[in-house]
Amino acid sequence: MFLRRAAFLLPRSTRLYSSSHDINSTIAELNKEMEFVFGEAPPTSLAGSSESQPMSQDSESIPAENMNNESILTHISTKGEAQMVDVSHKDISKRVAIASCKVLLGRKAYDLVSANQVAKGDVLSVAKIAGITGAKQTSNLIPLCHNINLTHVRVDLRLNPQDYCVEIEGEAASTGKTGVEMEAMTAVSLAGLTVYDMCKAASKDIQITNVRLEHKTGGKSGNWSREK
Amino acid sequence: MFLRRAAFLLPRSTRLYSSSHDINSTIAELNKEMEFVFGEAPPTSLAGSSESQPMSQDSESIPAENMNNESILTHISTKGEAQMVDVSHKDISKRVAIASCKVLLGRKAYDLVSANQVAKGDVLSVAKIAGITGAKQTSNLIPLCHNINLTHVRVDLRLNPQDYCVEIEGEAASTGKTGVEMEAMTAVSLAGLTVYDMCKAASKDIQITNVRLEHKTGGKSGNWSREK
Amino acid sequence: MFLRRAAFLLPRSTRLYSSSHDINSTIAELNKEMEFVFGEAPPTSLAGSSESQPMSQDSESIPAENMNNESILTHISTKGEAQMVDVSHKDISKRVAIASCKVLLGRKAYDLVSANQVAKGDVLSVAKIAGITGAKQTSNLIPLCHNINLTHVRVDLRLNPQDYCVEIEGEAASTGKTGVEMEAMTAVSLAGLTVYDMCKAASKDIQITNVRLEHKTGGKSGNWSREK
Amino acid sequence: MFLRRAAFLLPRSTRLYSSSHDINSTIAELNKEMEFVFGEAPPTSLAGSSESQPMSQDSESIPAENMNNESILTHISTKGEAQMVDVSHKDISKRVAIASCKVLLGRKAYDLVSANQVAKGDVLSVAKIAGITGAKQTSNLIPLCHNINLTHVRVDLRLNPQDYCVEIEGEAASTGKTGVEMEAMTAVSLAGLTVYDMCKAASKDIQITNVRLEHKTGGKSGNWSREK
Amino acid sequence: MFLRRAAFLLPRSTRLYSSSHDINSTIAELNKEMEFVFGEAPPTSLAGSSESQPMSQDSESIPAENMNNESILTHISTKGEAQMVDVSHKDISKRVAIASCKVLLGRKAYDLVSANQVAKGDVLSVAKIAGITGAKQTSNLIPLCHNINLTHVRVDLRLNPQDYCVEIEGEAASTGKTGVEMEAMTAVSLAGLTVYDMCKAASKDIQITNVRLEHKTGGKSGNWSREK
Amino acid sequence: MFLRRAAFLLPRSTRLYSSSHDINSTIAELNKEMEFVFGEAPPTSLAGSSESQPMSQDSESIPAENMNNESILTHISTKGEAQMVDVSHKDISKRVAIASCKVLLGRKAYDLVSANQVAKGDVLSVAKIAGITGAKQTSNLIPLCHNINLTHVRVDLRLNPQDYCVEIEGEAASTGKTGVEMEAMTAVSLAGLTVYDMCKAASKDIQITNVRLEHKTGGKSGNWSREK
Repeated sequence: MFLRRAAFLLPRSTRLYSSSHDINSTIAELNKEMEFVFGEAPPTSLAGSSESQPMSQDSESIPAENMNNESILTHISTKGEAQMVDVSHKDISKRVAIASCKVLLGRKAYDLVSANQVAKGDVLSVAKIAGITGAKQTSNLIPLCHNINLTHVRVDLRLNPQDYCVEIEGEAASTGKTGVEMEAMTAVSLAGLTVYDMCKAASKDIQITNVRLEHKTGGKSGNWSREK
Repeated sequence: MFLRRAAFLLPRSTRLYSSSHDINSTIAELNKEMEFVFGEAPPTSLAGSSESQPMSQDSESIPAENMNNESILTHISTKGEAQMVDVSHKDISKRVAIASCKVLLGRKAYDLVSANQVAKGDVLSVAKIAGITGAKQTSNLIPLCHNINLTHVRVDLRLNPQDYCVEIEGEAASTGKTGVEMEAMTAVSLAGLTVYDMCKAASKDIQITNVRLEHKTGGKSGNWSREK
Repeated sequence: MFLRRAAFLLPRSTRLYSSSHDINSTIAELNKEMEFVFGEAPPTSLAGSSESQPMSQDSESIPAENMNNESILTHISTKGEAQMVDVSHKDISKRVAIASCKVLLGRKAYDLVSANQVAKGDVLSVAKIAGITGAKQTSNLIPLCHNINLTHVRVDLRLNPQDYCVEIEGEAASTGKTGVEMEAMTAVSLAGLTVYDMCKAASKDIQITNVRLEHKTGGKSGNWSREK
Repeated sequence: MFLRRAAFLLPRSTRLYSSSHDINSTIAELNKEMEFVFGEAPPTSLAGSSESQPMSQDSESIPAENMNNESILTHISTKGEAQMVDVSHKDISKRVAIASCKVLLGRKAYDLVSANQVAKGDVLSVAKIAGITGAKQTSNLIPLCHNINLTHVRVDLRLNPQDYCVEIEGEAASTGKTGVEMEAMTAVSLAGLTVYDMCKAASKDIQITNVRLEHKTGGKSGNWSREK
Repeated sequence: MFLRRAAFLLPRSTRLYSSSHDINSTIAELNKEMEFVFGEAPPTSLAGSSESQPMSQDSESIPAENMNNESILTHISTKGEAQMVDVSHKDISKRVAIASCKVLLGRKAYDLVSANQVAKGDVLSVAKIAGITGAKQTSNLIPLCHNINLTHVRVDLRLNPQDYCVEIEGEAASTGKTGVEMEAMTAVSLAGLTVYDMCKAASKDIQITNVRLEHKTGGKSGNWSREK
Repeated sequence: MFLRRAAFLLPRSTRLYSSSHDINSTIAELNKEMEFVFGEAPPTSLAGSSESQPMSQDSESIPAENMNNESILTHISTKGEAQMVDVSHKDISKRVAIASCKVLLGRKAYDLVSANQVAKGDVLSVAKIAGITGAKQTSNLIPLCHNINLTHVRVDLRLNPQDYCVEIEGEAASTGKTGVEMEAMTAVSLAGLTVYDMCKAASKDIQITNVRLEHKTGGKSGNWSREK
């Protein structure tokens, strides 16, 4: 463990130093808002199940400061290994998440997609289906994501003539033990990629931007909405 | 019925008028660069197979100008319906595409991910695997995408301390009849979503941006690289 | 083929006119049996979530009568767009659905399949496995279908020497908020396609017919069985 | 239902006897047309690869007549076990297959779907996407089907006001060693199931019928078209 | 190889006779411990649902002794056909299963993997992700397995220098009506296959062994742990 | 379990030291047989494509000896990161691989499975289908595995009364640029897991062992067979 860090710290020392420096202040701030931030994270005491005794013992050898900052990434174990969060102990609640993104088409592609609106089977309809279908695939695409049952998926696409873009909004809902942010984020990403696929012959300069969470409800951390 | 159509045309009439206006000039420009732009598109004469006779006849009722601008979206048939491009007649060539995106973490999450670099199974490694695995799922996620065999997928993630982001570059390669842009775009998108998933408990303000093509080789349209 | 083309070449308006004519009387009848028919449909008031304000406003411009007939297709929003039905608000109940279909083999293929019954790994056994496995894939195959957990899938295949066919019956069960008709329908369809695949070298005239629902229980609309 | 049970309770032996009786005459006829019928089947001499020596020895104990009739089901080995056909030795050729089916909606559901045609994201468009996407899933759904790369998938849906049905035609194309009938058959089946899913709240009496091959080209057995 | 062929060429009847002989004593013993062994099996009275009347009648013609021993394989119906176990009637409980396996690398490959530990993205990390991801695919891979929602998946890999192997332990957890043994078994198998894949160029003599259940809790059969 | 923990608690550094010691001698031996062993590996000069310039520069800081031993794991880049092997430059050849494993059932479960042989839809038939189907899923399950088209998959299961086990042999074939070992290994593993699933209610002491490659042909490294 020690040897590994030593060997590894050589090339990146600069960045690591500065960042471990940042961590101290970061943790201070973070501790204040932990209760909010960690709605989605299991209490450390639950992090290791009875089978992972060796881990918890092992991890005692890790400096506390280090543990703190690592345990803040709920998908990283106290040993620094990737893990799926154990939600077995969590309460069931209705959960909703809304994400959004923009596909910047540029004027040419925008006009083509816009003109196509009058026809059926248009670009936006195919992208909508891709987003809804993709949301159901989330746990097969995001390694540490739980597989859950969605009670609703909504994907809406809107043409915005101001900046020649397609605005995509995706909503996922579930009644369960874990959030649905990733399902909403995956829905809008795949809808955006489908718009890109159907327009790429008209322009290679199309970009997907601002893939982000807009709103969430349910779970320990409660409701959250992005300030407009 | 009529009313609905009216209702449908009212809110969009302005946009539609202006855009059909734009289309005329657009098409003029586009015709010049057609040979380049349409490397990926089958000649119109191939658009309808022997079975789709009715289509081509039917489509005669569509004004030629209209057909032109619609046929520019190679995934939209002359009838305005979504279609998979028929690549049966295309030549086989080595194809490579490189795409990229950024995940804006913000300072807190950035420091956590950066500190995590010393451990194995870190955020960037999991995201790399998600990107490689996801590229192989592209045709199951993008409705009109062909299923192809990839000879190579590469996903690299780099921490950029300047703007506290993760820079992701994805490369896909294949020897076949159709391009691999979507495989590269999907790889970076899924890698980005995985970074988001593993950091979302630390910050809800993370964004994935600039998902775009950087470079492509092979196929009729030949090589292309984004100007830096 | 010819008839189909003829039908297809009829100007759309004609068909639409006659059918919008039908709608008026249709709606009248449908309104009476709405309570039964709409067991599976969410109350219109729930159709648009708080996030879809723009929609609900937009849809106000659609005449109420119009909304009614569209809301009858529960997978089409009041805006005429495809949607997944939101079942978040529904009660949990035990649900069972049984579907069936026939694979008309013709005498040659029938005799071959029948003779194969004495061996293990026979056609019907492979098709049974394909049906059970396929039922679990339903939500990945039917775009607007919810992903659910099935508590049981049963697929039975029987040789019917009267008309040289294979009779397939499939049953799906779940305890949840949405029905399992599609899981049962998908199970029998995929079992039928597998029989077709394994017999297609012996005859190209095999047909799958009468894929239909036989029985359902659970959910708001309660029990239903096809009259024999 | 009753008839089915009756048929089912008949002692297996009876059915088998009569059918093995049929086989003798059947085989006689079949031998004549073998060259045509068996374009898709590997010569018996290739049935067992060097690794399956034990099989071929073992199978000597099976009466020749028996072997003949079983080897006619190319997905059943000479031992009577299910098998994937080995196409390693086959030539590469362009292959196309077209399949079709009907979804009998009944008048109410037909009028609703028909009225929905003017809006985007309509029933037929969603079903078209489901068919195209599903064709790419064929080898994951049909156990003994080869996974291949499709160069084209086309799915067209047409409203037929004569008998209130949706007519679906699906085409798959590939350049390879094995046919694409199953991809075309799967495409129309999944498109039909999607129409069913989106209309099932309006009527429980919808049926999918006549799922069948219409046309095929390529491969040893050459071209074939259904007589009209 | 030779021994295997020999064993295989033995007339089936011999093996069957001897084994049906064994069955009689076997059943005697089994009946004693049925209550424990059959925690996972539905009472015979539930084996056939109302729809499978024909079956239960049919099965009366099967000798009782025969039925007993067949009903002991809960995935085989009283008719000797494969079936998914119906868990609709089961109680919901927290379920956990732990499985393990070993990948015998041999010294060369072991040293390479061990040396690779100092870098990130190492063999064990990739295998861990493959195991976690694979557990979520279990019901798509094991035909008669139920699709369930996992609340936790844990996969740990440890280098064991004593016998140059990788020890893999996998844990799956769920709150539901059916066990998670298969999810844990699939997780360790796929993690092991991934280790094999990443090391196969260094040695063709790598073996995966001792894939087995270590521990389970929940369900009617309660807790079980392997004696050390 | 105890031994495992003990082994695990040993400071990693010790193991690493001893093993880096082993590496020196290991590399010496390995260099001799490189040409054979590395049929599947791309020449180092191809390891980094033009896009991965930063890497190759970066990797200069890694001691050469270190590079050598890491490049021996063809799925680990010179930077020690996981990578998919680039096979774009490889020649196309017919490739076959055969793998095998054993499922140790113990006498009770063995007798039940053996007795079930007389019925159709038996354990071995379902497992055979699971193996064939699973082979087609290999690239979705093994992260760094290429997605390829298989021309043949064969899975045979044999009861071995000597040690009460099921012997499984799986064969995969393809004409392409990369080997099919993983497809054969995955086929037997999933067939074995399916046997386990169908027998687990009868005994919790079933083990899958000796999952290994038996034979391979094609590719640069040519033919290989396990000594008996």
